[in-house]
Amino acid sequence: MKLYDYFRSSAAYRVRIALNLKGVAPERAFVHLRRGAQRDADYLDLNPEGLVPLIMTDDGAVLTQSLAIVEWLDETHPAPPLLPGTPVERARVRSLALAIACDIHPLNNLRVLKYLTGTLGATDAARDAWYAHWCEVGLRALETRLAREPATGRFCHGDAPTLADVCLVPQLANARRVDLDLAQFPTLLRIEAACVALAAFAAAAPARQPDAE
Amino acid sequence: MKLYDYFRSSAAYRVRIALNLKGVAPERAFVHLRRGAQRDADYLDLNPEGLVPLIMTDDGAVLTQSLAIVEWLDETHPAPPLLPGTPVERARVRSLALAIACDIHPLNNLRVLKYLTGTLGATDAARDAWYAHWCEVGLRALETRLAREPATGRFCHGDAPTLADVCLVPQLANARRVDLDLAQFPTLLRIEAACVALAAFAAAAPARQPDAE
Repeated sequence: MKLYDYFRSSAAYRVRIALNLKGVAPERAFVHLRRGAQRDADYLDLNPEGLVPLIMTDDGAVLTQSLAIVEWLDETHPAPPLLPGTPVERARVRSLALAIACDIHPLNNLRVLKYLTGTLGATDAARDAWYAHWCEVGLRALETRLAREPATGRFCHGDAPTLADVCLVPQLANARRVDLDLAQFPTLLRIEAACVALAAFAAAAPARQPDAE
Repeated sequence: MKLYDYFRSSAAYRVRIALNLKGVAPERAFVHLRRGAQRDADYLDLNPEGLVPLIMTDDGAVLTQSLAIVEWLDETHPAPPLLPGTPVERARVRSLALAIACDIHPLNNLRVLKYLTGTLGATDAARDAWYAHWCEVGLRALETRLAREPATGRFCHGDAPTLADVCLVPQLANARRVDLDLAQFPTLLRIEAACVALAAFAAAAPARQPDAE
């Protein structure tokens, strides 16, 4: 198995956490997003979306989209499970993950920020305010849910990490890049602390990757 | 079961298609997004994200996020399946769905377009160009994949509709709202035609909903 990765990609960060939780250590390749390596012909041939992460399986299958990769990993390496046991519980965990993956992260990824300042001519301050706005709106809704729902435990769902935690920790790392008061999200910070105390999460952090700058 | 819906929401449109494919006809409630009904206190109490769709199950569980809802529906109502049989095939279908749900749709939903013209002061023309740009980038990558991957059939994956088709048809409906030449996506249009020939897709169209304007 080979992971195409980039240290600062929070979608790749999710997959790194999940691989560590499963105890799977794939071969690694690094796609330097800031230098535009995702638009090289060879990479686009592998992934026409020009995004990371990407997994090439030992059988040569190419898997893209971080949440699809984590679900595949959970199906092929069932222990420890990253989704709970019942359909309603799985729907809860997936909805928490998707609230991050669909409603926060796409609005603050690199290509979108570049369009704002480039094509739309937004100032750096306006771009940062955009980034902070969507983080805040999305994280506030997550805080409300996680604080009040009885299924929340030490982690987003119960007392073991799931797909939701795999998404939460990278998104909070993103939120720290802009001026946003995270103290308004005490439940998220409490869960994040429980996560990063685990080696699987800590070892996946951007600063600890071989391509970190 | 009760579906909280809005005719023009393409995320709700996905769930309507999936329900129809499963032959499930829930009670309906309509949340008028253009009038801001998603920010009413009662609705925010139900869904702190202030988004549709939402399903309330017969047991009172609240399910949000369209893809989480469709996965739940597929687990609780297995026939006909909306995901294929092997982990790699499921990863393919999920990645196609997520390429739409994460990389296209979040950039052209209503609240984001309002931020562009409101807070950022973009012109209507700049907003429409943004919308068309992200549709085009995302749909082009999908066209490349679907045209070349042998697993593509009459539908996105093989010869029966899956989660990927459930996402594709609403996204193409969105793309038609802006000036974008869809003829550059012949595979997507061919699959869309196969989908809308089915009553389950046709009956889920925005114009055919009770709250359509």
